[in-house]
Amino acid sequence: MVIRPARADDAASIWSIIEPTIRAGQTLALDPQMSETDAVAHWMAPDKDTFVAEEDGLVLGTYYMRANQGGGGGHVCNCGYVTSAAAAGRGIARRMCEHSLNHARSRGYRAMQFNFVVSTNERAVRLWQSLGFGIVGRLPLAFRHPTQGYVDALVMYQSLLV
Amino acid sequence: MVIRPARADDAASIWSIIEPTIRAGQTLALDPQMSETDAVAHWMAPDKDTFVAEEDGLVLGTYYMRANQGGGGGHVCNCGYVTSAAAAGRGIARRMCEHSLNHARSRGYRAMQFNFVVSTNERAVRLWQSLGFGIVGRLPLAFRHPTQGYVDALVMYQSLLV
Repeated sequence: MVIRPARADDAASIWSIIEPTIRAGQTLALDPQMSETDAVAHWMAPDKDTFVAEEDGLVLGTYYMRANQGGGGGHVCNCGYVTSAAAAGRGIARRMCEHSLNHARSRGYRAMQFNFVVSTNERAVRLWQSLGFGIVGRLPLAFRHPTQGYVDALVMYQSLLV
Repeated sequence: MVIRPARADDAASIWSIIEPTIRAGQTLALDPQMSETDAVAHWMAPDKDTFVAEEDGLVLGTYYMRANQGGGGGHVCNCGYVTSAAAAGRGIARRMCEHSLNHARSRGYRAMQFNFVVSTNERAVRLWQSLGFGIVGRLPLAFRHPTQGYVDALVMYQSLLV
Protein backbone atom coordinates (compact mmCIF):
# COMPACT_ATOMS: atom_id res chain seq x y z
CA MET A 1 0.00 0.00 0.00
CA VAL A 2 1.20 3.49 -0.85
CA ILE A 3 -0.02 6.77 0.59
CA ARG A 4 0.28 9.58 -1.94
CA PRO A 5 -1.11 13.08 -2.55
CA ALA A 6 -4.58 12.97 -4.10
CA ARG A 7 -4.96 14.11 -7.70
CA ALA A 8 -8.04 15.75 -9.22
CA ASP A 9 -8.92 12.46 -10.90
CA ASP A 10 -9.10 10.71 -7.52
CA ALA A 11 -12.33 12.57 -6.75
CA ALA A 12 -14.63 9.69 -7.69
CA SER A 13 -12.58 7.18 -5.65
CA ILE A 14 -12.52 9.55 -2.68
CA TRP A 15 -16.27 9.99 -2.89
CA SER A 16 -16.76 6.21 -2.94
CA ILE A 17 -14.77 6.00 0.31
CA ILE A 18 -16.30 8.92 2.18
CA GLU A 19 -19.89 8.62 0.98
CA PRO A 20 -20.90 5.67 3.23
CA THR A 21 -19.33 7.34 6.27
CA ILE A 22 -21.03 10.66 5.55
CA ARG A 23 -24.39 8.98 4.89
CA ALA A 24 -24.16 6.95 8.11
CA GLY A 25 -23.77 10.18 10.12
CA GLN A 26 -22.23 8.39 13.08
CA THR A 27 -18.68 9.71 13.19
CA LEU A 28 -18.27 12.82 11.01
CA ALA A 29 -19.90 16.16 11.79
CA LEU A 30 -21.08 16.57 8.21
CA ASP A 31 -24.58 16.71 6.80
CA PRO A 32 -25.51 13.09 6.01
CA GLN A 33 -27.45 14.34 2.95
CA MET A 34 -24.46 16.24 1.58
CA SER A 35 -24.07 16.08 -2.21
CA GLU A 36 -21.08 14.46 -3.90
CA THR A 37 -20.02 17.87 -5.22
CA ASP A 38 -20.07 19.49 -1.80
CA ALA A 39 -18.41 16.54 -0.07
CA VAL A 40 -15.57 16.32 -2.58
CA ALA A 41 -15.14 20.11 -2.52
CA HIS A 42 -14.88 19.91 1.28
CA TRP A 43 -12.47 16.97 1.35
CA MET A 44 -10.23 18.29 -1.45
CA ALA A 45 -10.51 22.02 -0.62
CA PRO A 46 -7.64 24.27 -1.74
CA ASP A 47 -6.60 24.92 1.88
CA LYS A 48 -6.14 21.18 2.51
CA ASP A 49 -3.46 18.64 1.69
CA THR A 50 -5.41 15.55 0.67
CA PHE A 51 -3.94 12.05 0.44
CA VAL A 52 -5.12 8.63 -0.64
CA ALA A 53 -4.02 5.20 0.52
CA GLU A 54 -3.84 3.02 -2.55
CA GLU A 55 -3.17 -0.65 -3.16
CA ASP A 56 -3.05 -2.26 -6.61
CA GLY A 57 -4.65 0.86 -8.09
CA LEU A 58 -7.53 0.75 -5.62
CA VAL A 59 -8.11 3.60 -3.15
CA LEU A 60 -8.68 2.13 0.33
CA GLY A 61 -8.63 5.27 2.40
CA THR A 62 -8.18 9.01 2.34
CA TYR A 63 -7.23 11.80 4.68
CA TYR A 64 -6.80 15.55 4.62
CA MET A 65 -4.68 17.99 6.59
CA ARG A 66 -5.19 21.71 7.06
CA ALA A 67 -4.25 24.45 9.49
CA ASN A 68 -6.81 24.22 12.29
CA GLN A 69 -6.90 27.97 12.91
CA GLY A 70 -5.59 31.08 11.18
CA GLY A 71 -3.19 33.71 12.45
CA GLY A 72 -1.56 32.79 15.76
CA GLY A 73 -3.21 29.36 15.62
CA GLY A 74 -1.71 28.37 12.28
CA HIS A 75 1.00 26.11 13.71
CA VAL A 76 -1.56 23.47 14.76
CA CYS A 77 -2.96 21.20 12.06
CA ASN A 78 -6.16 19.24 11.85
CA CYS A 79 -6.86 16.03 9.93
CA GLY A 80 -9.80 13.90 8.91
CA TYR A 81 -9.47 10.23 7.92
CA VAL A 82 -11.84 7.74 6.32
CA THR A 83 -11.13 4.12 5.46
CA SER A 84 -13.10 2.04 3.02
CA ALA A 85 -15.56 -0.15 4.90
CA ALA A 86 -14.38 -3.08 2.76
CA ALA A 87 -10.83 -2.59 4.03
CA ALA A 88 -11.66 -2.09 7.72
CA GLY A 89 -9.49 -3.83 10.31
CA ARG A 90 -6.37 -3.84 8.17
CA GLY A 91 -4.65 -0.95 9.94
CA ILE A 92 -5.18 1.54 7.14
CA ALA A 93 -6.35 4.32 9.46
CA ARG A 94 -3.27 3.76 11.61
CA ARG A 95 -1.02 3.91 8.56
CA MET A 96 -2.69 7.10 7.36
CA CYS A 97 -2.40 8.73 10.78
CA GLU A 98 1.28 7.80 11.04
CA HIS A 99 1.77 9.25 7.57
CA SER A 100 -0.04 12.43 8.58
CA LEU A 101 2.11 12.87 11.69
CA ASN A 102 5.21 12.71 9.50
CA HIS A 103 3.69 15.00 6.91
CA ALA A 104 2.71 17.50 9.61
CA ARG A 105 6.27 17.62 10.93
CA SER A 106 7.59 18.08 7.41
CA ARG A 107 5.20 20.99 6.97
CA GLY A 108 6.47 22.55 10.19
CA TYR A 109 3.36 22.07 12.26
CA ARG A 110 3.99 21.99 16.01
CA ALA A 111 0.86 20.06 17.03
CA MET A 112 -2.09 18.14 15.66
CA GLN A 113 -5.63 18.59 16.91
CA PHE A 114 -8.82 16.64 16.32
CA ASN A 115 -11.70 18.99 17.11
CA PHE A 116 -14.56 16.58 17.26
CA VAL A 117 -14.06 12.87 17.89
CA VAL A 118 -17.44 11.33 18.61
CA SER A 119 -17.09 9.60 21.99
CA THR A 120 -19.03 6.53 20.87
CA ASN A 121 -16.43 5.97 18.14
CA GLU A 122 -14.39 4.06 20.70
CA ARG A 123 -12.20 2.31 18.19
CA ALA A 124 -11.04 5.65 16.80
CA VAL A 125 -10.49 7.09 20.29
CA ARG A 126 -8.30 4.12 21.24
CA LEU A 127 -6.43 4.27 17.93
CA TRP A 128 -5.64 7.97 18.33
CA GLN A 129 -4.57 7.41 21.92
CA SER A 130 -2.25 4.60 20.84
CA LEU A 131 -0.72 7.02 18.34
CA GLY A 132 0.05 9.61 21.02
CA PHE A 133 -3.04 11.78 21.17
CA GLY A 134 -4.47 12.83 24.50
CA ILE A 135 -8.04 13.80 25.27
CA VAL A 136 -7.75 17.50 26.14
CA GLY A 137 -11.42 18.37 26.11
CA ARG A 138 -14.89 16.90 26.34
CA LEU A 139 -17.90 18.60 24.71
CA PRO A 140 -21.00 17.51 26.60
CA LEU A 141 -23.70 16.06 24.35
CA ALA A 142 -22.28 17.94 21.37
CA PHE A 143 -23.09 15.20 18.84
CA ARG A 144 -26.47 13.82 17.96
CA HIS A 145 -25.89 10.20 17.07
CA PRO A 146 -28.50 8.72 14.74
CA THR A 147 -29.21 5.78 17.05
CA GLN A 148 -27.63 6.64 20.41
CA GLY A 149 -28.99 10.17 20.78
CA TYR A 150 -26.93 13.02 22.19
CA VAL A 151 -23.42 11.89 23.07
CA ASP A 152 -20.20 13.69 24.00
CA ALA A 153 -17.52 14.65 21.54
CA LEU A 154 -13.82 14.75 22.42
CA VAL A 155 -11.04 17.17 21.58
CA MET A 156 -7.79 15.25 21.04
CA TYR A 157 -4.35 16.80 20.74
CA GLN A 158 -0.74 15.88 20.28
CA SER A 159 2.39 17.99 20.36
CA LEU A 160 4.73 17.22 17.47
CA LEU A 161 7.83 18.66 19.15
CA VAL A 162 10.39 15.89 19.73
CA MET B 1 -27.75 50.87 22.91
CA VAL B 2 -29.53 48.49 20.58
CA ILE B 3 -28.28 45.16 19.24
CA ARG B 4 -29.69 44.44 15.80
CA PRO B 5 -28.97 42.22 12.79
CA ALA B 6 -26.19 43.63 10.62
CA ARG B 7 -27.10 44.95 7.19
CA ALA B 8 -24.90 44.91 4.11
CA ASP B 9 -24.24 48.63 4.58
CA ASP B 10 -22.78 47.97 8.05
CA ALA B 11 -19.71 46.41 6.44
CA ALA B 12 -17.52 49.52 6.75
CA SER B 13 -18.51 50.01 10.42
CA ILE B 14 -17.89 46.37 11.18
CA TRP B 15 -14.47 46.57 9.56
CA SER B 16 -13.59 49.63 11.65
CA ILE B 17 -14.42 47.60 14.78
CA ILE B 18 -12.70 44.34 13.89
CA GLU B 19 -9.65 45.69 12.05
CA PRO B 20 -7.67 46.78 15.14
CA THR B 21 -8.36 43.45 16.87
CA ILE B 22 -7.37 41.45 13.79
CA ARG B 23 -4.23 43.54 13.24
CA ALA B 24 -3.20 43.16 16.90
CA GLY B 25 -3.29 39.36 16.54
CA GLN B 26 -3.59 38.81 20.27
CA THR B 27 -7.05 37.33 20.68
CA LEU B 28 -8.46 36.13 17.35
CA ALA B 29 -7.06 33.21 15.38
CA LEU B 30 -7.15 35.18 12.15
CA ASP B 31 -4.31 36.32 9.91
CA PRO B 32 -3.28 39.76 11.21
CA GLN B 33 -2.57 40.83 7.62
CA MET B 34 -6.04 39.84 6.42
CA SER B 35 -7.61 42.20 3.89
CA GLU B 36 -10.77 44.17 4.59
CA THR B 37 -12.58 42.17 1.90
CA ASP B 38 -11.61 38.82 3.41
CA ALA B 39 -12.31 39.93 6.97
CA VAL B 40 -15.75 41.29 6.19
CA ALA B 41 -16.56 38.21 4.08
CA HIS B 42 -15.56 36.06 7.06
CA TRP B 43 -17.47 38.07 9.66
CA MET B 44 -20.62 38.45 7.53
CA ALA B 45 -20.51 35.06 5.80
CA PRO B 46 -23.82 33.63 4.54
CA ASP B 47 -23.71 30.82 7.11
CA LYS B 48 -23.54 33.33 9.98
CA ASP B 49 -26.04 35.53 11.77
CA THR B 50 -24.17 38.81 12.28
CA PHE B 51 -25.25 41.53 14.70
CA VAL B 52 -24.08 45.02 15.59
CA ALA B 53 -24.37 46.88 18.89
CA GLU B 54 -25.29 50.46 17.99
CA GLU B 55 -25.70 53.65 19.98
CA ASP B 56 -26.72 56.99 18.46
CA GLY B 57 -26.04 55.60 14.99
CA LEU B 58 -22.53 54.50 15.95
CA VAL B 59 -21.51 50.82 15.85
CA LEU B 60 -19.69 49.96 19.10
CA GLY B 61 -19.43 46.20 18.72
CA THR B 62 -20.30 43.25 16.55
CA TYR B 63 -20.76 39.53 16.88
CA TYR B 64 -21.59 36.56 14.71
CA MET B 65 -23.23 33.21 15.34
CA ARG B 66 -23.02 30.07 13.28
CA ALA B 67 -23.44 26.33 13.71
CA ASN B 68 -20.11 25.10 15.06
CA GLN B 69 -20.26 21.79 13.21
CA GLY B 70 -22.40 20.24 10.50
CA GLY B 71 -24.54 17.14 10.60
CA GLY B 72 -24.91 15.66 14.09
CA GLY B 73 -23.01 18.64 15.54
CA GLY B 74 -25.38 21.26 14.17
CA HIS B 75 -27.22 21.89 17.45
CA VAL B 76 -24.19 23.62 19.00
CA CYS B 77 -23.48 27.18 17.95
CA ASN B 78 -20.30 29.22 17.97
CA CYS B 79 -19.91 32.98 18.28
CA GLY B 80 -17.23 35.62 17.89
CA TYR B 81 -17.43 39.06 19.48
CA VAL B 82 -15.44 42.26 19.06
CA THR B 83 -15.98 45.56 20.84
CA SER B 84 -14.66 48.91 19.68
CA ALA B 85 -11.49 49.77 21.60
CA ALA B 86 -12.96 53.24 22.17
CA ALA B 87 -15.96 51.69 23.96
CA ALA B 88 -14.07 49.15 26.08
CA GLY B 89 -15.08 48.71 29.71
CA ARG B 90 -18.70 49.66 29.15
CA GLY B 91 -20.07 46.14 29.26
CA ILE B 92 -20.74 45.91 25.55
CA ALA B 93 -19.22 42.45 25.17
CA ARG B 94 -21.37 41.25 28.07
CA ARG B 95 -24.49 42.72 26.46
CA MET B 96 -23.64 41.12 23.13
CA CYS B 97 -23.01 37.73 24.74
CA GLU B 98 -26.29 37.88 26.66
CA HIS B 99 -28.01 38.79 23.41
CA SER B 100 -26.34 35.88 21.65
CA LEU B 101 -27.43 33.40 24.33
CA ASN B 102 -31.03 34.52 23.83
CA HIS B 103 -30.68 34.44 20.06
CA ALA B 104 -29.16 30.96 20.21
CA ARG B 105 -32.11 29.67 22.25
CA SER B 106 -34.55 31.27 19.81
CA ARG B 107 -32.75 29.51 16.96
CA GLY B 108 -33.11 26.20 18.78
CA TYR B 109 -29.44 25.67 19.58
CA ARG B 110 -28.84 23.42 22.57
CA ALA B 111 -25.37 24.65 23.49
CA MET B 112 -22.80 27.33 22.70
CA GLN B 113 -19.11 26.61 22.22
CA PHE B 114 -16.07 28.86 21.94
CA ASN B 115 -13.37 26.86 20.18
CA PHE B 116 -10.36 28.98 20.82
CA VAL B 117 -10.23 31.48 23.69
CA VAL B 118 -6.62 32.63 24.07
CA SER B 119 -5.68 31.91 27.68
CA THR B 120 -3.88 35.23 28.11
CA ASN B 121 -7.13 37.04 27.28
CA GLU B 122 -8.02 36.77 30.96
CA ARG B 123 -10.69 39.42 30.87
CA ALA B 124 -12.59 37.49 28.24
CA VAL B 125 -12.16 34.18 30.07
CA ARG B 126 -13.60 35.70 33.25
CA LEU B 127 -16.42 37.36 31.35
CA TRP B 128 -17.46 34.14 29.65
CA GLN B 129 -17.25 32.29 32.97
CA SER B 130 -19.47 34.89 34.62
CA LEU B 131 -21.99 34.32 31.81
CA GLY B 132 -22.14 30.58 32.46
CA PHE B 133 -19.42 29.12 30.27
CA GLY B 134 -17.14 26.44 31.60
CA ILE B 135 -13.64 25.59 30.45
CA VAL B 136 -14.05 22.12 28.93
CA GLY B 137 -10.70 21.87 27.19
CA ARG B 138 -7.19 23.27 27.15
CA LEU B 139 -5.08 23.26 23.96
CA PRO B 140 -1.42 23.31 25.01
CA LEU B 141 0.56 26.15 23.38
CA ALA B 142 -1.96 26.29 20.54
CA PHE B 143 -1.69 30.06 20.08
CA ARG B 144 1.36 32.07 19.19
CA HIS B 145 0.94 35.39 20.92
CA PRO B 146 2.82 38.28 19.27
CA THR B 147 4.54 39.28 22.52
CA GLN B 148 4.03 36.37 24.94
CA GLY B 149 5.04 33.52 22.65
CA TYR B 150 3.23 30.18 22.61
CA VAL B 151 0.33 30.15 25.06
CA ASP B 152 -2.59 27.81 25.70
CA ALA B 153 -6.01 28.25 24.17
CA LEU B 154 -9.21 27.23 25.92
CA VAL B 155 -12.36 25.54 24.74
CA MET B 156 -15.38 26.99 26.56
CA TYR B 157 -18.89 25.57 26.50
CA GLN B 158 -22.34 26.17 27.87
CA SER B 159 -25.50 24.09 27.66
CA LEU B 160 -28.54 26.20 26.76
CA LEU B 161 -31.08 23.68 28.09
CA VAL B 162 -33.14 25.07 30.99
